[in-house]
Amino acid sequence: MELALPERETDCAEGKALQERLPVHCFGCGVLNAKGLQIRSRWHGDECVCRWQPGAEHVGHPGLVYGGTIASVVDCHAIWTALSHACTVDGIELGRDALPFAYVTGGLTVDYLRPADIAQPLVLHARIVEHGARKSIVACQVMQGDTTCARAQVVAVRVAGAR
Amino acid sequence: MELALPERETDCAEGKALQERLPVHCFGCGVLNAKGLQIRSRWHGDECVCRWQPGAEHVGHPGLVYGGTIASVVDCHAIWTALSHACTVDGIELGRDALPFAYVTGGLTVDYLRPADIAQPLVLHARIVEHGARKSIVACQVMQGDTTCARAQVVAVRVAGAR
Repeated sequence: MELALPERETDCAEGKALQERLPVHCFGCGVLNAKGLQIRSRWHGDECVCRWQPGAEHVGHPGLVYGGTIASVVDCHAIWTALSHACTVDGIELGRDALPFAYVTGGLTVDYLRPADIAQPLVLHARIVEHGARKSIVACQVMQGDTTCARAQVVAVRVAGAR
Repeated sequence: MELALPERETDCAEGKALQERLPVHCFGCGVLNAKGLQIRSRWHGDECVCRWQPGAEHVGHPGLVYGGTIASVVDCHAIWTALSHACTVDGIELGRDALPFAYVTGGLTVDYLRPADIAQPLVLHARIVEHGARKSIVACQVMQGDTTCARAQVVAVRVAGAR
């Protein structure tokens, strides 16, 4: 299934991102980590979207985004998707209410389908495939324009305690 | 199957690493990327070993190594394992002979089994599971001391042209 990009590029920049509501130090998603990737995730309907511009240092083969960095962006974006979905289900407001749980990555699978241009942003579309009391499964598509660069699946495991 | 650590810690620091024989800019493994992870991989018998100390910025949840960074180290280490194995099979000396091929990541799967302490080095043990003309499959175990933190599998796809 091909997922449409947000209609306007600015859609991904509107409103407070999930990560801005709950500042952490994580390399992938922490707004407090100056050396990190600092991704931002926002819900648009039933999918959670992240638009992220790689830096020149995130190169793999010349001119292309490093696969490990793609896996990193997927990992964090999927965990925030799972966490924020669980908050919605449980009636918890992220950034306001105390969090009785956090999510950690139990498994990550990425299929790299097309090279991703280092000069272009990645747009990630994540959906909840399965949500349970102990874990959630998140599917994520990594796109550049109309090209699907990667498809991924993350098993997000719920653990006690705040992130 | 539990893999033994190298007998002496210094084993992983002996001799020229694969990445030092072929300097590239990749974020995960390029010795030319000042902002990158700069991993080093060396063969010890039939396994390729990488010992890598995370920096403070590679944190995920507090005190623990970020899963995306673990995936990144696995990705590059497995690709170098596949590339150098293919060179050996084809009678090519890495860093001396022209490379008629490169390897790219077709698929990456990581199962996170135990949290990894940010203060301790990761030691990766990779083995060739399958080697063919078009792709190789590499299994990789990520350890800290006697603890297996993650098990991973990488599909390394051979493409024409030098890395």
